[in-house]
Amino acid sequence: MTIRIGIVGVSGYGGGEVLRLAATHPHFRVTYVAGESSAGAKLVEKFPGLPARLGDLIIQKWDPAELAEVDLLFASLPTGESKASLAAVDAGIKIVDIGGDHRYASGWTYGLADVWPDEICNGSRIANPGCYPSASLLAIAPLIAAKLIDPADIIIDAKSGVSGAGRGGGSTFGYAEVNEDVSAYGLLKHAHLPEMNATVSRLAGKASSLIFTPHLIPMTRGILATVYAKGTASTEACLDAARTFYKDRPFVRVTEKPPHTKWALGTNLAFVSYAADPARNLVMALCAIDNLGKGAAGQAIQNANLMCGLNETTGLEGTALWP
Amino acid sequence: MTIRIGIVGVSGYGGGEVLRLAATHPHFRVTYVAGESSAGAKLVEKFPGLPARLGDLIIQKWDPAELAEVDLLFASLPTGESKASLAAVDAGIKIVDIGGDHRYASGWTYGLADVWPDEICNGSRIANPGCYPSASLLAIAPLIAAKLIDPADIIIDAKSGVSGAGRGGGSTFGYAEVNEDVSAYGLLKHAHLPEMNATVSRLAGKASSLIFTPHLIPMTRGILATVYAKGTASTEACLDAARTFYKDRPFVRVTEKPPHTKWALGTNLAFVSYAADPARNLVMALCAIDNLGKGAAGQAIQNANLMCGLNETTGLEGTALWP
Amino acid sequence: MTIRIGIVGVSGYGGGEVLRLAATHPHFRVTYVAGESSAGAKLVEKFPGLPARLGDLIIQKWDPAELAEVDLLFASLPTGESKASLAAVDAGIKIVDIGGDHRYASGWTYGLADVWPDEICNGSRIANPGCYPSASLLAIAPLIAAKLIDPADIIIDAKSGVSGAGRGGGSTFGYAEVNEDVSAYGLLKHAHLPEMNATVSRLAGKASSLIFTPHLIPMTRGILATVYAKGTASTEACLDAARTFYKDRPFVRVTEKPPHTKWALGTNLAFVSYAADPARNLVMALCAIDNLGKGAAGQAIQNANLMCGLNETTGLEGTALWP
Amino acid sequence: MTIRIGIVGVSGYGGGEVLRLAATHPHFRVTYVAGESSAGAKLVEKFPGLPARLGDLIIQKWDPAELAEVDLLFASLPTGESKASLAAVDAGIKIVDIGGDHRYASGWTYGLADVWPDEICNGSRIANPGCYPSASLLAIAPLIAAKLIDPADIIIDAKSGVSGAGRGGGSTFGYAEVNEDVSAYGLLKHAHLPEMNATVSRLAGKASSLIFTPHLIPMTRGILATVYAKGTASTEACLDAARTFYKDRPFVRVTEKPPHTKWALGTNLAFVSYAADPARNLVMALCAIDNLGKGAAGQAIQNANLMCGLNETTGLEGTALWP
Repeated sequence: MTIRIGIVGVSGYGGGEVLRLAATHPHFRVTYVAGESSAGAKLVEKFPGLPARLGDLIIQKWDPAELAEVDLLFASLPTGESKASLAAVDAGIKIVDIGGDHRYASGWTYGLADVWPDEICNGSRIANPGCYPSASLLAIAPLIAAKLIDPADIIIDAKSGVSGAGRGGGSTFGYAEVNEDVSAYGLLKHAHLPEMNATVSRLAGKASSLIFTPHLIPMTRGILATVYAKGTASTEACLDAARTFYKDRPFVRVTEKPPHTKWALGTNLAFVSYAADPARNLVMALCAIDNLGKGAAGQAIQNANLMCGLNETTGLEGTALWP
Repeated sequence: MTIRIGIVGVSGYGGGEVLRLAATHPHFRVTYVAGESSAGAKLVEKFPGLPARLGDLIIQKWDPAELAEVDLLFASLPTGESKASLAAVDAGIKIVDIGGDHRYASGWTYGLADVWPDEICNGSRIANPGCYPSASLLAIAPLIAAKLIDPADIIIDAKSGVSGAGRGGGSTFGYAEVNEDVSAYGLLKHAHLPEMNATVSRLAGKASSLIFTPHLIPMTRGILATVYAKGTASTEACLDAARTFYKDRPFVRVTEKPPHTKWALGTNLAFVSYAADPARNLVMALCAIDNLGKGAAGQAIQNANLMCGLNETTGLEGTALWP
Repeated sequence: MTIRIGIVGVSGYGGGEVLRLAATHPHFRVTYVAGESSAGAKLVEKFPGLPARLGDLIIQKWDPAELAEVDLLFASLPTGESKASLAAVDAGIKIVDIGGDHRYASGWTYGLADVWPDEICNGSRIANPGCYPSASLLAIAPLIAAKLIDPADIIIDAKSGVSGAGRGGGSTFGYAEVNEDVSAYGLLKHAHLPEMNATVSRLAGKASSLIFTPHLIPMTRGILATVYAKGTASTEACLDAARTFYKDRPFVRVTEKPPHTKWALGTNLAFVSYAADPARNLVMALCAIDNLGKGAAGQAIQNANLMCGLNETTGLEGTALWP
Repeated sequence: MTIRIGIVGVSGYGGGEVLRLAATHPHFRVTYVAGESSAGAKLVEKFPGLPARLGDLIIQKWDPAELAEVDLLFASLPTGESKASLAAVDAGIKIVDIGGDHRYASGWTYGLADVWPDEICNGSRIANPGCYPSASLLAIAPLIAAKLIDPADIIIDAKSGVSGAGRGGGSTFGYAEVNEDVSAYGLLKHAHLPEMNATVSRLAGKASSLIFTPHLIPMTRGILATVYAKGTASTEACLDAARTFYKDRPFVRVTEKPPHTKWALGTNLAFVSYAADPARNLVMALCAIDNLGKGAAGQAIQNANLMCGLNETTGLEGTALWP
């Protein structure tokens, strides 16, 4: 089976990672690529290591009417830019939207692939979760589902590499200013909060009000979410809940040691771990991912596999770069 | 006035930073340096940019009996190694112990210089706070003192550069493995917890039981402490409490924006900020420092200044390296 | 066809990269892994993202007598440690030695896979080139072969990431000391010089005496070789010579722009480029690789493919991580 | 003596470093700051750690007519922007131009402070050398002056941190793309070549035609120049020539080991070293500096000191940050 793939936003970090993964996917053939800043160039000019069959593709100016030769479209556009243009895509073309416009939007399935894979199998319009939500929700979903923590009192302290901010951004994300620096931002009001609250509420069956603090740290890829919640379960009970919850889910690994983001570098893996102090009514949950893998393109490929009836690990078997 | 300075552990990161600061201090003259690994070498072999008057000093094998020509000793030794040897130092020699052996120990003053400067002025044996406690306590001290947060329910999520681990450590702290990685460690049981709890309890007048999670991030210097506490004060009330608490304290800056560790790079400064959501009973406190500055050598010099009757900013006027 | 693979030195960076590549190789099945520091542990403890079939392997204490179930052995041992032990390996087991002991040694084929693939096809004992020689030689081989530069007057200025030094090394390779630093080392006497001179002499048909300066720069992976040679060919003539020389060689890309090491990150690719100033009798050659890819494990897999009669790109199709 | 200082381009990296150094200079009082992007803001908004006396200064929109209260002006403007505006500055105001517009321009003294300090003492318009020329020329000046190398055959391979490119620059200098990357650029035609050739020619008394290759490496600050030249002097003869040439020059250190840029971090120091192979007619020269120190603001302050009749080390006594 060959599925013809289109990628919109291919010159961004998320789109580029979809391209990297699609390039070695045994059932995907990339036939259409589009990008604003690099339209007209050959793909090899942006990605000099591509094999010729891909490198010779011309980057198009994005136009939903040009997609006749595509079976499945990955869209990785800045927030606000995918709503209108993706509405114009032919209904017969499957879409995974990596951007933020369609999460919990009507007509779209929220693609948290390790939690609700069955829904994705039946979808044709998948809204890929944000990078922070991917890490945060995978950490706490088992605890919420098993009622081991209180959904009304959860604090998520997340640390992200710089590629999460996308390309551009000027000197704020320049090497000279990011190196040797860490800071928090968006205190108490990050754009990813609604989809996180919606997901926790759905899992818990009641309202959720998360505290979420993102931090920018000097690395290119990776997110670590450190979660503090209320509960009296033991460490072992939390680990067991996660082992049960993620049983047979191929991309989530439950570890006894606190996970490192480097364990996930370049992969679609998520590593979750737990530590509890019942005497203090405290449960800690941790999750490490590659923000461009599980947090964007990896999960997007997984969602595409599910939609296409493929084994969800197809093309995602690579293990982490180390060191 | 010239004060003759000795530095034990000069080839470590903390001791090296004391040397850097002492080198341009107008009243300090370094006359004795000791270090285990580099004994016998000239100081310039370890620190190639030193002026000749310092560079020609020979690094000694540490021996408390050799300190005749020293008025004030900075000790920066691994945990467990300073207790016995510092006990043998002549009582007439002032000591600042940067290591961990004497914090809240009998006969020693806890040197949290921006909170209790007067006690330090009267001391001759100062236990310099740890790097994590320095950042964490400066963030919350004003809120504890003003009773704006509950000392029984405080979570500290801290991010540190690698120099905090000291030299050595093998590949765990090697560039290849630290770059592109973040992880938590020492969950629920870090060695710095006792001094933090002791300090909060003293400020609050009642027992404290902090949750503390340290993280290693890929940078050389810097600690950011992100604190979550219970309270109904507004953001502005928290900022005001800090402005009042740190009024006339020269090294603590209260900022409205979340602070960056780079603002403190190479200095003894601490930047604190606050954000609150009274409706959710939440107060956030942040503090950014240089772990080798305010978190070690900078505060040590400040403590030495206080003990010697100098203006506490003497020799600490340098502003941050940027970028 | 399934080839049973052994990896000695699996807990080092080179051995670990062989494992990563072998894990997704369609004809390789890893059946034996050995490592000094981690013997007795399950592989998953060192590489937490491995699939279970690999992760459950126990790391053995290296013993050449235990290799009954292995068809092909990758050895990645410190210099001096492979000579004796590999001599004891059964002659029926193919070997690729990534370490430095057998380069241009009797009974071993020098595995510069992009230059002399045919010899490797016929070998059973392959000495994988060093990381610096891989980058340096791929840059200049086409010019030497086409007699466009003088083999007696070549200067190679190379810049390497830290993983080239292997694990261990203490604070010299620690993040705190490597970050924000660059230096040259081993001036005029690096261990890789003999194999480089031997290769250039063989290509040129006369003696060579290279000048080679390695530099350590703050990154984990990657080598860039910048070469200065004497010759009056134009830039275009040099590019053409390389295009001809590497025609049909799948892993070497000739580019008009100066190459970036990041183009090769995680791959077995080499990017070469040229710039000349005939009026000044100057030819510049550049080559960018991943030191653990083309510079070690990638080329080792390529050599193994050649020895086993496989297409040499098998298992090496992955494109570079970006960013 | 108090000298009133103006800084134009204060929000750039070079201008910001002048501010940092001027802030603790005992004879300088900053009274005027100007910057394009941040005009109207208080200085403390850009540099949060400044003491109040400086932090309260308002960043002006640059206007040469407003400089009445200034004795000495540091200009750090993009290439092409200082020529016209500095011509409008009152002749009574001394100027150090850190930008590139006035190097070897009529009416301006080339401020290579460690080589020709006397000329600077007599100047009032100083063109500060570029960062690459500062490192390169300090390496080779002693060899040229002593006629130990041939000025017609010199290759300079330089490695620079990212801050040398200034602020802005978009994703090309973004952390995500610079981290884990090294590349050469501007092959055979860098903008700094004319001032380097002019300086070498002047020192040698005959024409020079340097080969110069800059490289961008993943660090914020620092330049290492590795120079290859023709000559038959011994290593020791080269070191001696440098020791003689830089006798009593306070900022240049001649070292036997290859220098590290980190030795110079945050300082105005330059470290030079040499290695020779007379049998091969080869002399290597190395120089490590902080590109914002000796390569920009540090040398600018040194030039200002010389012009003002101060000891040239005034305000530049700080030793390097380590690690």
